[in-house]
Amino acid sequence: MAPSVAVENLNPKVLKCEYAVRGEIVIHAQRLQQQLQTQPGSLPFDEILYCNIGNPQSLGQQPVTFFREVLALCDHPSLLEKEETKSLFSADAISRAKRILSTIPGRATGAYSHSQGIKGLRDAIAAGIALRDGFPANADDIFVTDGASPGVHMMMQLLLRDEKDGILCPIPQYPLYSASIALHGGTLIPYYLDEKTGWGLEISELKKQLEDARSKGIDVRALVVINPGNPTGQVLAEDNQCDIVRFCKNEGLVLLADEVYQENIYVDDKKFNSFKKIARSIGYGEDDLPLVSFQSVSKGYYGECGKRGGYMEITGFSASVREQVYKIASVNLCSNITGQILASLIMNPPKEGDESYAAYKAEKDGILQSLARRAKALEDAFNNLEGISCNKAEGAMYLFPQIHLPQKAIEAAKAAKKAPDAFYALRLLEATGIVVVPGSGFGQVPGTWHIRCTILPQEDKIPAVITRFKAFHEAFMAEYRD
Amino acid sequence: MAPSVAVENLNPKVLKCEYAVRGEIVIHAQRLQQQLQTQPGSLPFDEILYCNIGNPQSLGQQPVTFFREVLALCDHPSLLEKEETKSLFSADAISRAKRILSTIPGRATGAYSHSQGIKGLRDAIAAGIALRDGFPANADDIFVTDGASPGVHMMMQLLLRDEKDGILCPIPQYPLYSASIALHGGTLIPYYLDEKTGWGLEISELKKQLEDARSKGIDVRALVVINPGNPTGQVLAEDNQCDIVRFCKNEGLVLLADEVYQENIYVDDKKFNSFKKIARSIGYGEDDLPLVSFQSVSKGYYGECGKRGGYMEITGFSASVREQVYKIASVNLCSNITGQILASLIMNPPKEGDESYAAYKAEKDGILQSLARRAKALEDAFNNLEGISCNKAEGAMYLFPQIHLPQKAIEAAKAAKKAPDAFYALRLLEATGIVVVPGSGFGQVPGTWHIRCTILPQEDKIPAVITRFKAFHEAFMAEYRD
Repeated sequence: MAPSVAVENLNPKVLKCEYAVRGEIVIHAQRLQQQLQTQPGSLPFDEILYCNIGNPQSLGQQPVTFFREVLALCDHPSLLEKEETKSLFSADAISRAKRILSTIPGRATGAYSHSQGIKGLRDAIAAGIALRDGFPANADDIFVTDGASPGVHMMMQLLLRDEKDGILCPIPQYPLYSASIALHGGTLIPYYLDEKTGWGLEISELKKQLEDARSKGIDVRALVVINPGNPTGQVLAEDNQCDIVRFCKNEGLVLLADEVYQENIYVDDKKFNSFKKIARSIGYGEDDLPLVSFQSVSKGYYGECGKRGGYMEITGFSASVREQVYKIASVNLCSNITGQILASLIMNPPKEGDESYAAYKAEKDGILQSLARRAKALEDAFNNLEGISCNKAEGAMYLFPQIHLPQKAIEAAKAAKKAPDAFYALRLLEATGIVVVPGSGFGQVPGTWHIRCTILPQEDKIPAVITRFKAFHEAFMAEYRD
Repeated sequence: MAPSVAVENLNPKVLKCEYAVRGEIVIHAQRLQQQLQTQPGSLPFDEILYCNIGNPQSLGQQPVTFFREVLALCDHPSLLEKEETKSLFSADAISRAKRILSTIPGRATGAYSHSQGIKGLRDAIAAGIALRDGFPANADDIFVTDGASPGVHMMMQLLLRDEKDGILCPIPQYPLYSASIALHGGTLIPYYLDEKTGWGLEISELKKQLEDARSKGIDVRALVVINPGNPTGQVLAEDNQCDIVRFCKNEGLVLLADEVYQENIYVDDKKFNSFKKIARSIGYGEDDLPLVSFQSVSKGYYGECGKRGGYMEITGFSASVREQVYKIASVNLCSNITGQILASLIMNPPKEGDESYAAYKAEKDGILQSLARRAKALEDAFNNLEGISCNKAEGAMYLFPQIHLPQKAIEAAKAAKKAPDAFYALRLLEATGIVVVPGSGFGQVPGTWHIRCTILPQEDKIPAVITRFKAFHEAFMAEYRD
């Protein structure tokens, strides 16, 4: 009998889905890492350096002490009754843990919560949003999620009926969006960011792609904007954001705002503005625009990827639509409480006057300033190489340099049945142990080739990364120069 | 302009999905709870008692100390360097936390892990499975998940192409299955458990429903078995399990084994056997049967629902199919690390000789013995009431009594536009504050009516629950007696 489960009889949407951030190159890197363990010295490098994914703590970034103190106390509340605890934990971590526990019914951090998240934690998140934006936020609009990804899936699940429903997505994009649209059977409508203007988002391009999609009978449901950009690192200007909001209102689109890098801004002349703040600033209320903002504990200066915390703030949906979102959330019962607590902490960190404030601020500033220096060092290094041009990382955690590959390299890639940027990334990995993601995993203007490289290796490793990269690139170009 | 998002233009699969465990009755209970806070004394009871969901810690069950010690140390590893820690934590919790941290690359509990979960933790889980079953288990077969639910969704997403793909599910069933099948656009093929034989699972019934579905052109992909049963509480006998395994092999079905209640057995003459153990015992290997076992940290004696930990063990899938499962898992990056650690702990708890063993065993036995007493007390109470018959809870966390409703009550329900059991459950809630789930949320033989009630109220509250329930039921029957 033929096997009852085979690739041929799986859901074709699953087969279609791609996620390069953990794709072929990374799987090959994991094999090489095993080889380094079993046969040390067998490769031209000593370690694999994962620059494929925004995962700061995997590369040595330390967690923020205050956050972890609170988590430990909430995990094991009987510590709060012990005298020794006062010498092991800061006073404000102890009082914060007590306050958090008092908002959890029965102080039960091991119980399923309300499917949107614990009310007291959502109150803290809403207060943090209101303080950030200067406009009110409501705990009932918050859905706490296991990282931002499940929120994105929930929205795609809600909006996409079939392949005639489309979602406008930036190209290049974070491939969660293309993967989720594929899994839910919709159509990705690309709009191209303009590399020449620092990955600018042009309204004329949005209009053109929207009209083109509509002319093909696609019902375009939503616009995804990633700000700060991933993989492109640009930070949108305020007037550009106003135009985007007006465009969504005029065209009847849901605005899906990926704002997970809101704390990661590295240039003085740019500032993060949430789309909700922008919408309220120009006088748009709930009825004008359905808007979803995604936030995550994985990014920012905290980088708590493994804790899987995050939330989405939903405004402008009718009560009956919201009920449907609640229902989908309730099928999975709730997100993890540790992540819920952490989501409340990042939106309500220590304040001036708190015992932990000075240490907290030093940790936060230290991480963000170091990331800015690393971004600049890597950007300069890329721009100094033959055939590479790299926009500034104004924000987020990535550089997305364009590699102007010689024709011979493109032909060699073709012979190896690889996309040219995947061929380059694979050769880079095999020569240096540096893992990057080929631009083809994010989408790019046809005929251009890029890589995404995080700015996350620890600062003392950056010179070595640059040296290794430079040596590889020069050898590669020498080998394939036309 | 019409709103761009309205119930009328949402994904119809979302609209179709139902999840009664957090449905109408529970939403009404939350409203009443708010009323109790704002207007104390305005209702005939002082508190809402949530018996709708297997959520032990929400009703006062304390977490297992050893598990929480380890979690706190892993959340804040710098505690391990402090002298005071030795007096605050047990020695084996300290050594376990150190061992766990040593298996996490960079000791980074805040980093995304391998998308199947941290390898060292999967090794511990596999070792626990092997010890439980007496057959080998492999870390590469383990996918650690945020509770069992995401694993179930992943399988449905993989297997279901369209409404011509069917999944055999028990009726009554845990509504995660019907919800997930609806969300993924497949067809639920019901097989009825036999209430008269203590919710027996008859192979003849499986065959009949399978053939019936096939005659309608349905490609039946998998069989769901929940053992111990939810909501029905039966524990399958070994020879019955052998027959089920043979049936799946002969009919080319994936066996989806929901084994999350494996620790919850309350009768001496029944014992939990994993389906993998059964399959291997009768000589079936990987090639004979694709088999997925779901486990969760939310159930058992630990009841750590809020931590969202769990895993699925996948055997009998080809490498190329497994790659697809890995790809879907990787789109969400990984499950939360706290839940991952806990999943390793429940499968590898303290052993005789460890410092914590005596305390651990006392906590575990105390909880399980108390659950057995509570199950018996509630079962007896139900069976003592007019028009109620209730099977024994051999395992799991629920009783599923049949309520023989008088015709007048059925007509009153019809007038109120409710299913008769929903009408009964709503009246119960309004009279007593006790929240149960109507049987219609799980499925039942047409014309029969049930409720699902957890056995989880703390033991000192059980007499009051019984008294309140009895008073309500007698009044209800008096009101509606034919």
